[in-house]
Parts: sequence; structure tokens; C-alpha cells
Amino acid sequence: MTQQTIQRCAIAEGTDMKLATFKIGARPTWGVIAGDEALDVGAVLRDRYGSLKAVLAADALSQVEAALPQAARHPLSEITWLPVIPDSNKVLCIGLNYEMHRLETGRAVVEHPTVFTRFADSQIGHLAHIIRPRVSQHLDFEGELAIIIGKPGRYITRENAWSHIAGYSCYNEGSIRDFQRHTHQFAPGKNFPGTGAFGPWMMTPDEAGDITTMKLETRLNGTVVQEALISQMIFDIPCQIEYCSTFTNLEPGDVIVTGTPGGVGAKRTPPLWMKPGDIVEVEIDRVGILRNGVADEA
Amino acid sequence: MTQQTIQRCAIAEGTDMKLATFKIGARPTWGVIAGDEALDVGAVLRDRYGSLKAVLAADALSQVEAALPQAARHPLSEITWLPVIPDSNKVLCIGLNYEMHRLETGRAVVEHPTVFTRFADSQIGHLAHIIRPRVSQHLDFEGELAIIIGKPGRYITRENAWSHIAGYSCYNEGSIRDFQRHTHQFAPGKNFPGTGAFGPWMMTPDEAGDITTMKLETRLNGTVVQEALISQMIFDIPCQIEYCSTFTNLEPGDVIVTGTPGGVGAKRTPPLWMKPGDIVEVEIDRVGILRNGVADEA
Repeated sequence: MTQQTIQRCAIAEGTDMKLATFKIGARPTWGVIAGDEALDVGAVLRDRYGSLKAVLAADALSQVEAALPQAARHPLSEITWLPVIPDSNKVLCIGLNYEMHRLETGRAVVEHPTVFTRFADSQIGHLAHIIRPRVSQHLDFEGELAIIIGKPGRYITRENAWSHIAGYSCYNEGSIRDFQRHTHQFAPGKNFPGTGAFGPWMMTPDEAGDITTMKLETRLNGTVVQEALISQMIFDIPCQIEYCSTFTNLEPGDVIVTGTPGGVGAKRTPPLWMKPGDIVEVEIDRVGILRNGVADEA
Repeated sequence: MTQQTIQRCAIAEGTDMKLATFKIGARPTWGVIAGDEALDVGAVLRDRYGSLKAVLAADALSQVEAALPQAARHPLSEITWLPVIPDSNKVLCIGLNYEMHRLETGRAVVEHPTVFTRFADSQIGHLAHIIRPRVSQHLDFEGELAIIIGKPGRYITRENAWSHIAGYSCYNEGSIRDFQRHTHQFAPGKNFPGTGAFGPWMMTPDEAGDITTMKLETRLNGTVVQEALISQMIFDIPCQIEYCSTFTNLEPGDVIVTGTPGGVGAKRTPPLWMKPGDIVEVEIDRVGILRNGVADEA
């Protein structure tokens, strides 16, 4: 494969540079998605980078590009998608960050972003089933934009914030609403295994273009249940990075899940809970479509 | 060193089995504390277990004991203490878990434990400085008992909960109160680097005895500022393990920080904030004394 054909895959076919984590058979790996194929770059660079997070930490995307000619190609139908970054140390979630959602929850206006956290092991990849746990039927969707940190930092300023972003992804921040409301702290409702869908891939900012102009849409069984422009966030992306990096070090592979628009199931009359057999999609214009089924816990 | 002298160190001298993570010079390691010495078991078993978390995951405390005769001994004055488990995947904190503290905060009675989370990189070891960040002077103490998970599990019952505990430690869940109250979610005030003191060691339950009979005391510059019996928790230890394991898998090395008694600095008139030069101690009867200074962020 020549440099010219790489160029063709990455740009001329309109497939963009998309990085993903997936399994081939039982083997976890990571690589690049080009058209309807996954390029197993992880196998080529396995002695240097065991994960996409390690690639980001080494600022080594150019090595990924250089390895493409050696990478085995697999039809997407043969891979199992995993969370884009399965091993993030920090998944920071922004709550109540679109006005329609703030209004439907009845929460007061606040001066700072609302931040809670997820553990990485609550996450699943594209096409995996979101799991309704045996202890609750109050399983709700939350379509969101996820940003993946590339360059580490503390006390990052608004002005420098964009340069710390390695990529964008779709996220379904699935919530167990009764556990979320057991007390005033959200953690129990936001960490059930199999509830945070993250994928299919991350798209680099250069490839995605201006994220703030894009539309976010959540569909449940084909019906649009949430939609908003990224520009409608209450606390914009630079503000989120500035604030989060004030109280914690941001590291490569950390994720900020930037908040969900109005329309969540819990605030409908009657409530609209996800149930086994449902198909839920989160689409962000050029970034991609994250699609998941729903299943009961085994 | 013979089996007889191990016995003497572990029991007859009253030093108990205490496991710790520390540095010798610049080299991080882990081992056993016996009297006024640290035994560098990490160096002996380094091909098998890179951390105390790995030892717990392998259920390999007997191998630690067997390795004691080969372990180099270092005076405690020559080691640098690190957080007992520096690399926990999950640090789950229980809020408002003693009645006096609930009352001083004005929070309503709730039916379930209040749970929020800390990132492991917010933590420091015994004798390290708690860091007052440049963005706030509202640095508060919270003396607590930490339990370290040994046996993994989900949906752990009250009856089985005790068997999942690998050990106990002291914890100072230092809080930046203004950030904690920016919104209703606590994460920003609970994750500043250098605010969570965790140590000096973990003591195995067999050595500690009945934890529920013990007293927890926090001292600021020698003055007692918090005290309670562990038995006075609102949600007891089995309840915390049962509840947390309902919404997340508990894994070896995970930590549950079990809540702080009344007396926090924020609720005093005038407020009592920690400041550079202070010495703060958290003591739990037989478990140990965690001592930290306070310093401004560099």
C-alpha cells in the first residue's frame, strides 16, 4: 500500500481518520476505521503501544498513519466494537448542560459546570447491548458528545483548551434513574455495568471540523427523542476543560462527556424507559452514529 | 531470618501485619511494616506482583509472609510513604454517614448511602503534605475509616460482606468546600491533587480485630476536632458493601471511604480551615495514626 492509497483511504473516500478499539475474534486490539474496514494497527505497533490511550499519551498518531500499510484489514462485520478508550483513568460527566434539560429537571441556574464521574468499566462499545440491571427498570438514555483528551494539563485556560482535545465521539450516558435519585449524589445511578455506550470511534478534530456547528440527535427505535446543537451548551467545551483541569490533572485518554439535551425519558409523561429489544442511536453530524440494543442483565 | 523471628515480628512484638506502599529512595515498592522497619517484599516478589493491588488480586498474602525472610529491612525514617493502594480503580466515598455530621450539614435523612467518588491521583501517603490549591483557602479535614476490598464481587450480600474486606486504613478525605458546593455534585471539591491522605498502612481484619468497637479521632495541631465510634455509622460497613456492589463491580484494591463524623471545619463558627504549617492526624484505635502536614501548592 502506497502513501497515495493511504491518502485515498483517509481523505479522498470521505472516510476521515477514525480511531477505534475493538476485538478481532477474542483478541482486543485497536486501529483505524476506513470505509467498511477496520485496520488492525494495534497488531503492528503492539510492542510500542498496547492501547489507543498509550498512543495518545505518546502523541504518536503519526506512527499510526505510518503503520497503516502493514495493518491487516478486516470487514467491520467481523469486529466487535469496544469502548473507544476502554481504560480511561477519568471519565468526567457534565450534568444539566443544555437549557431544555435543565428546565425539565427543575434545577437552578448555577455558575459552574455540574460534574460527576463514571468508572470506565461501566462502558460498552458500539452495537453492544446496554444492560438493564435486575434491580431497576428505570433505564434512561442520554445522548451526548464525548471529548477525548490528548495533551495532558492542569489549569488549562479557555484559550488553550482546544489544543488538549485528541478527538470526538458519541456517547450514550445511560442512567438508572431511581438509583441516581436515592440521594443528591448521582454516582450510583451512573455507574451500572453496561450502561455507558461510547463509540463507534473517535474522530480527530482536524477531520471533524467545527464541532460547535454540529447537531446531536438521539433516536429510540427510530423516533427522535433528543436533539440540540452543540453550540447550545450552557458551559461550552473550553469552559468544561478549564473547570475540570482546575480540580484534577487531565491526562491522555481521559474523557469529558459534555451533557445531554432535553427530552430524557424520565421527564416524559408517562416516563419513557428503555427496555429489552429497543434500539437506541446517538448521532452527531460528521462524528458518527452510535447504535446499541438493550437487553436485560443475564 | 527464621520462621520464629517472623512470628516475633508479626505478633509477639505487637506490631501486627501491616501492608504498605512506599518508596525507598526514588524506587516505588511495597511491603510489610514490622515495628520501626519496612520490609521490602516488593523487591523479592517483583516478577510476580508489581503492586499491593496485584497481591490482593492474586489472593497472595501467604506468599508475602513466605517472602519476609528474603526482604531487605529499612528503618521507617528512610522510606517515603505512598497511598496504601496508589492505583485503585475505584475509590468510593460515603457521605453524611454519622448522625452528628448529617445534622451539622442540614441534610435530610435518606434511605440509602450517599456515594461520590475520588480519583486515585488525588491521594497522598502518610507524612506527605496535604496541598491547599492556589484557587481556594477552604481546605477542610475529614477523618475516616477506609476499607480495602480483597475479594471481588457484585451483588454482595450483607452476610457475605465482611469476607470481601482485605484490610482497614485511616483516611483524611480532604475537601475543598467552595468547589464542593459549586453545584449539588461533590466531585470538584473532592478530587484536588494532594487532598486525600490514605495510610499509613492497611491492617488485615484478623490483626485489627472487631473494627466496629473502635474509635475514630481527628486531631488538628493536637486538638481533637472529630471523634466517633465506628459503630455510630448510619449505614454500617456491610450495608455500604452491599449497596456499592449493586451498582458496580467491586475489585481487589478498590477502596470504600466510610464517612466522617461531626466536627468538620466548614460547619464551625468561624470556619476552621487547614492552612500551611498545620499538622492533622487521623487515628483509629488499633489500625494506626495517619499524620500529614499542610502546604500551599507550589
